[in-house]
Amino acid sequence: MKLVCVDCSAELSWRESHTACSCGGRLEVIQDLKMLDGERLKTVFQERLAERMSVYASGVWRYKELILPGVPEEHIVTKYEGNTGLYTSEPIRSQLGIRALYFKAQSENPSGSFKDNGMTAAVSHGRFLGYKHFACTSTGNTSSSLAMYAAWGGCSSQVFVPSRSVSVNKVLQTLAYGAKVIRFDGTYDDGIRFLEQHGEELGLYVCNSVNPFRIEGQKSIIYEIAQYLNWELPDWIVIPGGALSNVSALGKGLEDLKNLGMITKLPRIALIQAEGASPFHRMMADGQDELIPQPNPATKASALNIGNPPSWKIARRVLRQCQGITCSVNDEEIMVSKKMIDQSGIGCEPASAATLAGLRKLMDDRIIDKDERALCILTGNLLKDTDILAETTDDMVYSDLTIESLRDL
Amino acid sequence: MKLVCVDCSAELSWRESHTACSCGGRLEVIQDLKMLDGERLKTVFQERLAERMSVYASGVWRYKELILPGVPEEHIVTKYEGNTGLYTSEPIRSQLGIRALYFKAQSENPSGSFKDNGMTAAVSHGRFLGYKHFACTSTGNTSSSLAMYAAWGGCSSQVFVPSRSVSVNKVLQTLAYGAKVIRFDGTYDDGIRFLEQHGEELGLYVCNSVNPFRIEGQKSIIYEIAQYLNWELPDWIVIPGGALSNVSALGKGLEDLKNLGMITKLPRIALIQAEGASPFHRMMADGQDELIPQPNPATKASALNIGNPPSWKIARRVLRQCQGITCSVNDEEIMVSKKMIDQSGIGCEPASAATLAGLRKLMDDRIIDKDERALCILTGNLLKDTDILAETTDDMVYSDLTIESLRDL
Ligand SMILES: [Zn+2]
Ligand SMILES: [Zn+2]
Repeated sequence: MKLVCVDCSAELSWRESHTACSCGGRLEVIQDLKMLDGERLKTVFQERLAERMSVYASGVWRYKELILPGVPEEHIVTKYEGNTGLYTSEPIRSQLGIRALYFKAQSENPSGSFKDNGMTAAVSHGRFLGYKHFACTSTGNTSSSLAMYAAWGGCSSQVFVPSRSVSVNKVLQTLAYGAKVIRFDGTYDDGIRFLEQHGEELGLYVCNSVNPFRIEGQKSIIYEIAQYLNWELPDWIVIPGGALSNVSALGKGLEDLKNLGMITKLPRIALIQAEGASPFHRMMADGQDELIPQPNPATKASALNIGNPPSWKIARRVLRQCQGITCSVNDEEIMVSKKMIDQSGIGCEPASAATLAGLRKLMDDRIIDKDERALCILTGNLLKDTDILAETTDDMVYSDLTIESLRDL
Repeated sequence: MKLVCVDCSAELSWRESHTACSCGGRLEVIQDLKMLDGERLKTVFQERLAERMSVYASGVWRYKELILPGVPEEHIVTKYEGNTGLYTSEPIRSQLGIRALYFKAQSENPSGSFKDNGMTAAVSHGRFLGYKHFACTSTGNTSSSLAMYAAWGGCSSQVFVPSRSVSVNKVLQTLAYGAKVIRFDGTYDDGIRFLEQHGEELGLYVCNSVNPFRIEGQKSIIYEIAQYLNWELPDWIVIPGGALSNVSALGKGLEDLKNLGMITKLPRIALIQAEGASPFHRMMADGQDELIPQPNPATKASALNIGNPPSWKIARRVLRQCQGITCSVNDEEIMVSKKMIDQSGIGCEPASAATLAGLRKLMDDRIIDKDERALCILTGNLLKDTDILAETTDDMVYSDLTIESLRDL
């Protein structure tokens, strides 16, 4: 296993902490899969489904051979993340008129979001290297996930947030897990750049979205889906697109499974952005060569409110490889779809509902056919965004406690 | 299987919906275990650990033979509840100086609380009987769990709450799942009585805490703990006490395991109440014959804010059977323990932290010995009570983005 620069192909050791190549390029973990036997792995992964209270009971570390094979068990920080529900909702499926529809609820992870799949890998890697202090720049699901794993691993965490834009509500969960939340004057990009440049000097292991080990952990989402569906994936995997680490991880996981012969057909990826924060979709739709950052992104799906996604090059490559497409949906479409998912009994935060909104739009546009099968990855828990709930749920009603009054309701 | 009245021993069929005996007594499900073989069940339950996407993948229905054996699979409404983490925290264990300490995180259930274990059973039972509409009187974890399962089963739900005492925040999750939340003038007891008397007439299947099938589902919590620990339970099981359905279920589950020879030694139960809502503890401590309701219960652990727990007779019987004890802790002690659990990386709502607070007090009082092993059941998710988080977490700090400033933090 090694780290390779996306831009200049320089190679670095995975036994060190790197947030970027010296040329400034993003780093990817490259693993030599030649020694692995896909059929043998299927058997091993199947046996581990019955594990409890061991590293292999985790829905990430069950697939350790494909995640971080070189990290010894004793360094792994796990809360048995993954193992989340893979649901079908007949009411939603029939309303769309699609052949098959699945929801993979990463929202059921221990900190309430899909970030846990990646963070368990990054924090375990950091602990393996001997780090005791972890850091990231984020206000949302990333920071609470980091705070949880750092605490669980007996380490400290620091979370950097721009003074202007952060509300206490967003970081309450992070603070509860004991993270130090540090406000600074500047933008997210300033915070990210600072940690990339000086994190090492401050003794901090940096867990921003460009951390390549987070991607390795996130690959497990597609492994788990494939395993649950007996290694036959649906035609389409639909994911929300914000920082775009999701699509990178998904593409990488699919490539692993294909190379190992564990799946025969690659699904297509549909990446859905919120209209108010859709620089990647615009680049793809307009055929631009470079991503043009959106200076003031604005969507109610707060987890998607990212104007300058760092991983766009890898995301574009992945989409090209799997004949993927992009799409954008507005906040109203997101909220309508959120209501459908919530009232189906599954539930999710707004960003997750962008998947269903996008799927509906792509079906309207005849890009996804009624005869195909689709799977939406739900990224965050219903309880993560109570402000939105307060805005969008129906009101309470008043009634006397009498049969007559209640019959009329 | 049959329903038996706790007061007059009348027998009723489990194939009907009953919330109480005609004498007013609570009903219990009584199952004939004679036909079951404990060793055989262990093997079956072990095999089911590897199940995914089937009824038996649930941490409740894995134990179907001991829960509701007569309900056919197609009526079961499950979100793979249970399957929650069983954790050890070395920092907390060593701080207490106890031999072994476990936390069972029912807070990781799909709706975020231990209520899911019972509600999947009640809603499945109701659907088996042909009900399409479900109801309860609650503002808290019960109502959101009911709303989720009713929606997931394609049914509607009505939640009754006293006008005076309910805040929108408490029912947002319930509203999101599509429940109709009905405010009425009166007390909780009025609402409970009304549903008991008129629920049937309104076509409602009633899921209040006295629903005997909820207890059956909740038994799975102790089955799962026992299975994970290879059928050897710790010396003490520590649980928070509000409505007391928890202790009833725990006692019943332990009795099943003992009768079937699946465990050899019964653990002792420590039931912890919040000082401001501790009528049961006062009855037990003072040796009163009857529970004296507390008219204005007041604790920050909102899930424990119950002044007139309906299941106190069963709870008392259970505690006597297992040499159990009760204890009360004040809000400050609860919050200190909550901070320990949150900052360990596990996290919970205040009511759950009463367990650790109680354990500490019972160790100080030399009732629980340092040489014993204890397990705390965590009942609700960290994200359930953000008001409390806002009150209790540390503040954010401000810093320049310079090495010098950050070194000093
Ligand atoms: Zn480079
Ligand atoms: Zn009776």
